[in-house]
Amino acid sequence: MDIIDKLPTVKRLIRQLHQVPFLASKNLYKVVSHFLQMDKDKLHQFSNILQEVKENVFLCSSCFVWKEKNVDCFFCADKNRDHSVICVVESWQDVLVIERTDNYHGLYHVLGGVICPLDGIGPSDLHIDSLIHRVNKDVKEIILAMNYTPEGEATSAFIARKLQGTNVKVSSLAKGVPIGSNLEFIDRLTISKAIVDRKPF
Amino acid sequence: MDIIDKLPTVKRLIRQLHQVPFLASKNLYKVVSHFLQMDKDKLHQFSNILQEVKENVFLCSSCFVWKEKNVDCFFCADKNRDHSVICVVESWQDVLVIERTDNYHGLYHVLGGVICPLDGIGPSDLHIDSLIHRVNKDVKEIILAMNYTPEGEATSAFIARKLQGTNVKVSSLAKGVPIGSNLEFIDRLTISKAIVDRKPF
Repeated sequence: MDIIDKLPTVKRLIRQLHQVPFLASKNLYKVVSHFLQMDKDKLHQFSNILQEVKENVFLCSSCFVWKEKNVDCFFCADKNRDHSVICVVESWQDVLVIERTDNYHGLYHVLGGVICPLDGIGPSDLHIDSLIHRVNKDVKEIILAMNYTPEGEATSAFIARKLQGTNVKVSSLAKGVPIGSNLEFIDRLTISKAIVDRKPF
Repeated sequence: MDIIDKLPTVKRLIRQLHQVPFLASKNLYKVVSHFLQMDKDKLHQFSNILQEVKENVFLCSSCFVWKEKNVDCFFCADKNRDHSVICVVESWQDVLVIERTDNYHGLYHVLGGVICPLDGIGPSDLHIDSLIHRVNKDVKEIILAMNYTPEGEATSAFIARKLQGTNVKVSSLAKGVPIGSNLEFIDRLTISKAIVDRKPF
């Protein structure tokens, strides 16, 4: 008999933590121990914030970036940003990544994933229609910034096709060798893509 | 200005999650997204279980393994286990690891860490005195099963010294090359330890 079977409360905590991404099974028990050892006040705080998140944090109905209740969207409401460019990304984390570059000043559109028939995710499960609806005469360019994976590429292709016939310019992130990389350790496909997409020096 | 500064509730969640081990900063935002996307009921469940853990789960006052309220310790209360052997480990996770071997039937004693002066952890911060107190005439052997690190070794040495003069046999886990390993990829110290500790075939 497993000792965990004798600890039903711990077992329920484990079941909850199992659903959290990036807690591989080896680490899971260290995380469980962390929670078991936390003092009552801290556990209470943690538990409260989980509830408050649901009450206070919502998706912007236009770009689907997280926003707090009674506060305008950080991007859509900002008059200083360039409203003529929309950068389409898979997830909120990608928005954070691009913002950290300090080199993009347009708007965003979070799809909430990529088209992946194997996982049962089709275009209607993503915020694609709402993206198409956002394209009006003020929007000059859509930058497709999906992950460089087969699913990301397929989703980009799907959106690009949907935008055909509109006047909007559709672009995507440059693909090639990353800065600081040693060609020796870069995969063959990236090198060959970088050769094909070579630019005048 | 950082977008996270505009999301105070999310910021507080991040601060809570920062304290959870094994959530490296790159993954943290995926975990945050996970919680933001969870539905209300699931968040409520998660939040509840965190509170219940504090009400239902306690350390056994003898061996310091987690136990549920109103239930006897899985190990100390089991008449079928060998009460003459105590295996001393750093943490609860180590108990789980040893139990999974199905090859140990004695009791445990969880120290709650190792002596580490750099982190300000001395012998009095660990359950060492209570271990010494457990050693009565019924206890024949103490197995020191700390991690094979400088701190683990120092803690073992400290406990072994404390037990000098008692009649209890003090042993430690065998050290050497792990099963399935390729000598080529094993570090020099382990190999040299395995040579010194060689056994008749």
